[in-house]
Amino acid sequence: MMKTILLNNRPKGKPTTSNFEFVEENKILTVNEGEILLEAKYVSVDPYLRGRMSDAKSYVPPFELNKPVQSGIVAKVIVSNNDKFLEGQYVSGLLNWQTQQVSTGVGLTKIDETKAPLSAFLGILGMTGLTAYLGLNEIGKPKAGETIVVSGAAGAVGSVVGQIAKILGLNVIGIAGTDEKIELLKSKFGFDAGINYNTSTNIDADLKELAPNGVDIYFDNVGGPISDAVLFNINRFARIIICGAISVYNETETPKSVSVQPFLVKNSALMQGFIVSNYADKFPEATQQLTSWLSVSKLTYTETIVEGFDNIPNAFIDLFDGKNKGKMIVKI
Amino acid sequence: MMKTILLNNRPKGKPTTSNFEFVEENKILTVNEGEILLEAKYVSVDPYLRGRMSDAKSYVPPFELNKPVQSGIVAKVIVSNNDKFLEGQYVSGLLNWQTQQVSTGVGLTKIDETKAPLSAFLGILGMTGLTAYLGLNEIGKPKAGETIVVSGAAGAVGSVVGQIAKILGLNVIGIAGTDEKIELLKSKFGFDAGINYNTSTNIDADLKELAPNGVDIYFDNVGGPISDAVLFNINRFARIIICGAISVYNETETPKSVSVQPFLVKNSALMQGFIVSNYADKFPEATQQLTSWLSVSKLTYTETIVEGFDNIPNAFIDLFDGKNKGKMIVKI
Repeated sequence: MMKTILLNNRPKGKPTTSNFEFVEENKILTVNEGEILLEAKYVSVDPYLRGRMSDAKSYVPPFELNKPVQSGIVAKVIVSNNDKFLEGQYVSGLLNWQTQQVSTGVGLTKIDETKAPLSAFLGILGMTGLTAYLGLNEIGKPKAGETIVVSGAAGAVGSVVGQIAKILGLNVIGIAGTDEKIELLKSKFGFDAGINYNTSTNIDADLKELAPNGVDIYFDNVGGPISDAVLFNINRFARIIICGAISVYNETETPKSVSVQPFLVKNSALMQGFIVSNYADKFPEATQQLTSWLSVSKLTYTETIVEGFDNIPNAFIDLFDGKNKGKMIVKI
Repeated sequence: MMKTILLNNRPKGKPTTSNFEFVEENKILTVNEGEILLEAKYVSVDPYLRGRMSDAKSYVPPFELNKPVQSGIVAKVIVSNNDKFLEGQYVSGLLNWQTQQVSTGVGLTKIDETKAPLSAFLGILGMTGLTAYLGLNEIGKPKAGETIVVSGAAGAVGSVVGQIAKILGLNVIGIAGTDEKIELLKSKFGFDAGINYNTSTNIDADLKELAPNGVDIYFDNVGGPISDAVLFNINRFARIIICGAISVYNETETPKSVSVQPFLVKNSALMQGFIVSNYADKFPEATQQLTSWLSVSKLTYTETIVEGFDNIPNAFIDLFDGKNKGKMIVKI
């Protein structure tokens, strides 16, 4: 049986399982000349998909209703009528939430599974790692001795940002939502310090204590009140990378925050939205560096692996409750 | 009689005359070897001075209480014991609100009064023109055919930004607070269109009509709700120059606005605080270009000239009610 998950209706606020529809079909897919048949093995679920489920203007077109949802997927080539792909080979790319599908191979990347476990190609060696590396370097322009704050620090991107910043010699402070995550930041990912935003009574004051010389770089995955608190601590010429705003993705009203403009002008500071796909020309260089650090254990990563195709929607929804540690992946 | 204006106490909210103290002294200033005696001729009053009257952390240290306020001033050399300055010559620089004062000459610029009227060296050929030119070019990176929105458009900086953007081939929309100012933007400064924020019922909708293809550059002098409306209209890769935030300078609470982060990430957009003094190495090039455009009448400017040393505080306070058209200057 071939299974597909369609976007049934657009979420209002936080997504629920009723936004999705499961379709089961007993059909044999036709693989024409130049095409390959793929079997999904690992499916990435990511906060940014929430944006594509709305029909608001954004940098990628919205998902169509009654069509399969798409995300980063590692798949195995089951049948190949395309010279560029061998049967049994693994590929990654933006694919449908389907157990099996046919592709021309355009946009897919072949995976060297000897370098890392398959799931890593959705995470540290995939978009997650590229986002961390390129966002930090291209906008953050880190210099040894500077102080960086990372929000969503225990998340897939945040935990990699912190590790790269440590490799580059920065003082690294992470913000996350449980004491267990804060402990993980320090023990596993080498962060210098962490703030639990759920138990802190004053994030601004905590930052002043942990970063008495101020914050030079802020890698922002969350937006909202956490980011407001960081603003009060930025230094002259600070760089703020806006990588995500998970705290407001589910808001149905336009969210309000502390006005950033006075802070930016007072500090000659920069705030820039980061979308990894704008930096595609730097992917080879970044992948090479990440693979190299991974091979000598300078980088490590955490995955939350959920089992079963049917659990893809729930895994996605759980992102918004912070139920993942590191990259959230569904194993088919 | 020598007159001085001191900062008597720090403004809370909008400044009032009671924040300042006038001192009259019947004394003869001593001019030592290497020094010059200056007589103030034109005094610039600028919104950014409000920031220095607070004791909050900022890019320039706060004014000290019971010390003279300082701003850009054009002065005449009355006595010179310094080889670099001739008696009768004019200079400009950051000087005290005093009718006469002694200086070593450090930080002062000699003025060629054959190039433009003396007051222009506080405006279009001074910090105002440099701010417009360098803010637009260094952060905005304008390209012919793009659309720019300028807030505070009838102000000293805004009116120059709009004119330079027109010279460079952009579509220019100004936002200002009276119909008279909007008319001036179009008839005198060559803006393509204007929005009166006091009579508009929906600035966002007005912008969508005037800039159906969206906004590529926003030169922001004001912050607050006007800037919120512009955010809804920015294009992919938009550049937002934060040059000032006059709408919030007098706020006593931390102001809130629409969260900018989701807009920046959706559009891969950049927002950067601009302080002209960070670009001092580009002043000669910028001054040369501005002088050249002025000499062939490609640039024009408006001044609001208030007469009399005693009116400096009122002229400054009037900035926050938008009583100036173009550069506000006090003639001594």
